[in-house]
Amino acid sequence: MQGMLVIISGPSGSGKGTVVKRLDPELGYALSISVTTRAPREGEEDGRDYFFTSEEDFHKMRAENALLEHAVYVGNYYGTPRKYVEEQIEKGKIVVLEIEVYGALQVKEKFPSAVLIFLMPPTLPELAQRLTNRGTEDMVTIEARLKKAMEEVPLISKYNYVVINDIIPEAVEKIDAIVNAERMKPMRSAEEIQKFIDSEAEMKEFLHSC
Amino acid sequence: MQGMLVIISGPSGSGKGTVVKRLDPELGYALSISVTTRAPREGEEDGRDYFFTSEEDFHKMRAENALLEHAVYVGNYYGTPRKYVEEQIEKGKIVVLEIEVYGALQVKEKFPSAVLIFLMPPTLPELAQRLTNRGTEDMVTIEARLKKAMEEVPLISKYNYVVINDIIPEAVEKIDAIVNAERMKPMRSAEEIQKFIDSEAEMKEFLHSC
Repeated sequence: MQGMLVIISGPSGSGKGTVVKRLDPELGYALSISVTTRAPREGEEDGRDYFFTSEEDFHKMRAENALLEHAVYVGNYYGTPRKYVEEQIEKGKIVVLEIEVYGALQVKEKFPSAVLIFLMPPTLPELAQRLTNRGTEDMVTIEARLKKAMEEVPLISKYNYVVINDIIPEAVEKIDAIVNAERMKPMRSAEEIQKFIDSEAEMKEFLHSC
Repeated sequence: MQGMLVIISGPSGSGKGTVVKRLDPELGYALSISVTTRAPREGEEDGRDYFFTSEEDFHKMRAENALLEHAVYVGNYYGTPRKYVEEQIEKGKIVVLEIEVYGALQVKEKFPSAVLIFLMPPTLPELAQRLTNRGTEDMVTIEARLKKAMEEVPLISKYNYVVINDIIPEAVEKIDAIVNAERMKPMRSAEEIQKFIDSEAEMKEFLHSC
């Protein structure tokens, strides 16, 4: 089975994190692991939670095009290492990258075979409700997030799929259907096609026996 | 729910007919109806089995680009009327067209949004077995069909999906997954996106109430 990179993206409050956590590793899903310059926190393990690195090495990776995207957050650098993604795909994994909209488009440009999924809350009041329910942000921040969500709508056309996240298990099932369909793309079916071609000799034997 | 045209194509013996018959009309599948110049047989109904037409009208349709493809078979003309396909899609149906490889590529050219599925037997000896099991064709015909199947392999790259037809219910499920995924393409999600945009007023009301 051929692997692939699946990018789950969408506005803040669309439920990216919740949905991604529900994707079943038994089906081949594996989360992408970011590289970061921030110090490991207690209990965090290198190569499991993050790839911890120095600022110097991070900039070297950037310069060598070894990062599919990168961002700065509270003075620390974060990025998606291309090598890890490629290795996991090689193993047949569905590598899942959960990321905001602009980062997602950056990755798609550097990794065109990536499957870009826009996770969308069903309506704006539903999104407003979710953001206020979190109780972690003030109204000014929430209104800014809602405005950003509206601005992101025209970018949906750049995505491969739109998944409405109304009921979480249904959104997870929709992502499974997308992955199943993507696995049947000709570019991901080289193995099956080769098997068919290689069976010619066996076919000739069969015909002789008729 | 937005409709679409799904073309099920592949070599003779790939099981197109069997798979197409199993697609559940309750899920929105509707078979495409061909127009033909041959006379209706007993029990055949115009608009259900075929659209029966005169040779003159058939050629008029061709000239007016009203046919997505056409072919001659035993002195009679057969074609796929664009209007019927478009009307059914408009109603939200998944219009299914079962057709051989060259006809399929002809349709895709005239109807680019069509979802082109190549149904493939798992191996050539399996295909040879199926064709001999039919018991309707002599060895010369069977060998010609096998040769044609091998020649069609390079055309798979022009398809949107490859479905290996090993176990029939599994092939049907794979087609269902493809249709579900295709429904989530941005171009087929205009309704959901519009609903999101239109909910801005309601969001503002919600924020005022906070």
